[in-house]
Amino acid sequence: MGVFSIRTTKRTSIVNITANVKEEVKRSGVRSGICIVYVPHTTAAVFINEGADPDVVRDITYMMEKLIPWEDRSYAHSEGNSAAHIRSAIIGNSRVIPVENGELMLGRWESVFLAEFDGPRERKVIVKVIGER
Amino acid sequence: MGVFSIRTTKRTSIVNITANVKEEVKRSGVRSGICIVYVPHTTAAVFINEGADPDVVRDITYMMEKLIPWEDRSYAHSEGNSAAHIRSAIIGNSRVIPVENGELMLGRWESVFLAEFDGPRERKVIVKVIGER
Amino acid sequence: MGVFSIRTTKRTSIVNITANVKEEVKRSGVRSGICIVYVPHTTAAVFINEGADPDVVRDITYMMEKLIPWEDRSYAHSEGNSAAHIRSAIIGNSRVIPVENGELMLGRWESVFLAEFDGPRERKVIVKVIGER
Repeated sequence: MGVFSIRTTKRTSIVNITANVKEEVKRSGVRSGICIVYVPHTTAAVFINEGADPDVVRDITYMMEKLIPWEDRSYAHSEGNSAAHIRSAIIGNSRVIPVENGELMLGRWESVFLAEFDGPRERKVIVKVIGER
Repeated sequence: MGVFSIRTTKRTSIVNITANVKEEVKRSGVRSGICIVYVPHTTAAVFINEGADPDVVRDITYMMEKLIPWEDRSYAHSEGNSAAHIRSAIIGNSRVIPVENGELMLGRWESVFLAEFDGPRERKVIVKVIGER
Repeated sequence: MGVFSIRTTKRTSIVNITANVKEEVKRSGVRSGICIVYVPHTTAAVFINEGADPDVVRDITYMMEKLIPWEDRSYAHSEGNSAAHIRSAIIGNSRVIPVENGELMLGRWESVFLAEFDGPRERKVIVKVIGER
């Protein structure tokens, strides 16, 4: 199992972690199997989408704030970060990617992202690769 | 493969199933691998988020009803539970968790939840653990 | 690892791919394990929900357009398909299903769907089954 850390810089930080995940896949020595990218934090999420144009991530950030705004009078959680918990629960705190010939089977435009919705914080990402060496 | 049942009590019931999942991991004997928590029902979902403050789950419930309301004139499905199906499809009917040293690698504040959006009902949860014993 | 192609016919196309996935599970020879259904495209998603009544998929399509409309003045991505990327990121580009006795452990009403939000296009779906033969 591999673990790496990401330091986020803003309240909402969406960070491309593809290179980190690829490194853990290589280190695992698995040739054929699956890779789990898992964030053990309740205000963060993992998703896969386009990494080429940064405007895609900007639009995802915009829509998360539009749908699940930071401020809402009906939130009950006393820490004031309910929006971050809700976004994390809906998007999900992990993604799974097939591995073949020792490589992630990511599509041409796909990157793996860590989304922190209540930063800035130091966050851990767990990468578990299982299969045949 | 392990299976357990949960009886929900309200239309929207979000139940902390962490203890049940941990028991299945122990029973599997797997020391290093991954655990899949899967609900085979189309109005239910599985997610991971904070279990310490019940207000977090309350806020998630509130936002699901705000975003995807139970009543909407444009719903076509004749059973009247379209909102439950849509919420299930978006959140997802499973989550995956790494296992190391025979333990779920859940973060400090993380719990695993079954969300039923069209209860009360009796629901099955499937736990599959794969890896090295 | 199995791969099959789906040709979508409309901008939003939600296609039942359960039969294709079952065929790949059979071909894998795995008796006990898990099946990953993965789409390597950034405007598409995979989800599991009711396949019996087509109105369920219609309602999911309706709600995705209501929540994350195709047109929104604040979108920045120049290709004009921001809504498709956002829907894909939130729903997720994969699902995981337990396999037992060589069969997907799908619930009675569950089907597996490919959702394309920026079609029509030719799309690949990757099916990876791991476990014991």
